[in-house]
Amino acid sequence: VIVSDTVLSSATREVVIGHGRPFVVIGERINPTGRKKLAAEMAAGDFSTVVADVHAQVAAGAHMLDVNAGIPLADEPAILAETVRLVQTLTDLPLSIDSSIVAALEAGLDAYVGKPLVNSVTGEEERLEAVLPLVAKHGAAVIAITNDETGISEDPDVRFAIAKRIVERADDHGIAAADVVVDPLVMPIGAMGTAGRQVFALVRRLHDELGVNTSCGASNVSFGLPNRGVLNAAFLTMAIANGLTSAITSPLHEEIRAAIMAADVMTGADAHCRAWISRFRDPAASVGSSEGGRRRGGRAARVSGPQTEAS
Amino acid sequence: VIVSDTVLSSATREVVIGHGRPFVVIGERINPTGRKKLAAEMAAGDFSTVVADVHAQVAAGAHMLDVNAGIPLADEPAILAETVRLVQTLTDLPLSIDSSIVAALEAGLDAYVGKPLVNSVTGEEERLEAVLPLVAKHGAAVIAITNDETGISEDPDVRFAIAKRIVERADDHGIAAADVVVDPLVMPIGAMGTAGRQVFALVRRLHDELGVNTSCGASNVSFGLPNRGVLNAAFLTMAIANGLTSAITSPLHEEIRAAIMAADVMTGADAHCRAWISRFRDPAASVGSSEGGRRRGGRAARVSGPQTEAS
Repeated sequence: VIVSDTVLSSATREVVIGHGRPFVVIGERINPTGRKKLAAEMAAGDFSTVVADVHAQVAAGAHMLDVNAGIPLADEPAILAETVRLVQTLTDLPLSIDSSIVAALEAGLDAYVGKPLVNSVTGEEERLEAVLPLVAKHGAAVIAITNDETGISEDPDVRFAIAKRIVERADDHGIAAADVVVDPLVMPIGAMGTAGRQVFALVRRLHDELGVNTSCGASNVSFGLPNRGVLNAAFLTMAIANGLTSAITSPLHEEIRAAIMAADVMTGADAHCRAWISRFRDPAASVGSSEGGRRRGGRAARVSGPQTEAS
Repeated sequence: VIVSDTVLSSATREVVIGHGRPFVVIGERINPTGRKKLAAEMAAGDFSTVVADVHAQVAAGAHMLDVNAGIPLADEPAILAETVRLVQTLTDLPLSIDSSIVAALEAGLDAYVGKPLVNSVTGEEERLEAVLPLVAKHGAAVIAITNDETGISEDPDVRFAIAKRIVERADDHGIAAADVVVDPLVMPIGAMGTAGRQVFALVRRLHDELGVNTSCGASNVSFGLPNRGVLNAAFLTMAIANGLTSAITSPLHEEIRAAIMAADVMTGADAHCRAWISRFRDPAASVGSSEGGRRRGGRAARVSGPQTEAS
């Protein structure tokens, strides 16, 4: 099985998720879930925090941005479409359009210029039938979450089987396996000591047997534990060592961003260590030392990250 | 192939290197190579820096200590034996006896109480014939370096073949594969972009096909690059994700020590995250924040690290 590249785009820029390529960081910040102030602002048509989150994540070296407008009692389809349009005026990074409401995904997709990532579909029959036609119609790629009607299985074999089913169902709708990015689902390791090993084995199997790219929300692994940044960094680098190709995370966490860049050096994806050297050759720009370091990080990532200009 | 445990001991304490167990950190500090002041002190019979290095590494959570007395023009066998005896009065951690001179290894082994690790033998015929009988006679374990008369091969298949030959030759001398800890040799990634992938694949193969434990000096990987601590931490966690079970490194580098502890959480080797929580539950004890953090780290590692009291 050969793992195919997942190509995402805006009007003028492509990002490729793929094995042997620099790891793709999908910035998670534009999401009102658990951010009351942001939710109230967005519901009231105030996008100033969204604008700031776009600029900060771009500067920090994000390769794509996730956009979510999940605000209770608000007109989510309209707000998501408006946010997508706004963000596309601010950055040429491709977006991940994130909602649990199908009508919102549809509005976001209608508003989007380029080939986005749809976040997400699960293995639930009703979701597959609602989301996959949308993904196919818009020529998008999709994140496949490995749970179904029975919930999230603690058995990685069940999660693998769900991933396989989603890839097959996507194929029925004319969506290539290359356009399905599987999220193996990360459990809190404080509650389940095998959570790490499970995900590492599952990522490797998804790579070897299904030939799909993978993505995950990394921070769940450290839920409830102290010093989460170091745990999340270790989790991500170990998952990358097993073949993980992207993650939805915050590029503003300097510890995580540096660990991912170091992992790119170790896999050889950062050719000639160019991004690493460009980011860190100034001895003052050590991890977390300064805002200056972050700004340099942004420039370096744009020079040598996975983006390529669309021809 | 089942990977066997490598059991090392002092008079009163055992440390086990093995798959699924906490990663074993072998403290590298007691080594005059490149430390002119230490070399001059040791040659003059002044062991005050050695004493300080023992205490600092034990407090920082080392599981074993490497002891080297390689001082040009000095009586290395006598000094190594004296250092081994001294260190064993200061700590009950098992030791790795480190010399390129066979007579020094012999003197160190004669002085040692317990079952040490011999650092090291290579695949060179003359070294195999000189070192393996010593290892067998003293019932020790040995680090096998994967180079031979032809030097260090850039081809990982050649390095694997050398490891296999050393394991077979050790067996001829009555030394079990469990007592051969293979060093896959880490090249500088700045000079060879495939260095990381090579070692990860080689560690996995040594685990899967030869069933041996592995060890490496991690810091070589980042030679010549900036921000080496983050690179070394990423390298080690990724190598652990591929099955590396020990490393000769400095436990005084808080970044490395924390990354290794995080990797133990992720592999499930730190049961119930006990060592992690004990080390970091005080929010003030974040990485590199204080000497206090280091002292706590020492205690945590001794409670829940791989050491067990010998019965």
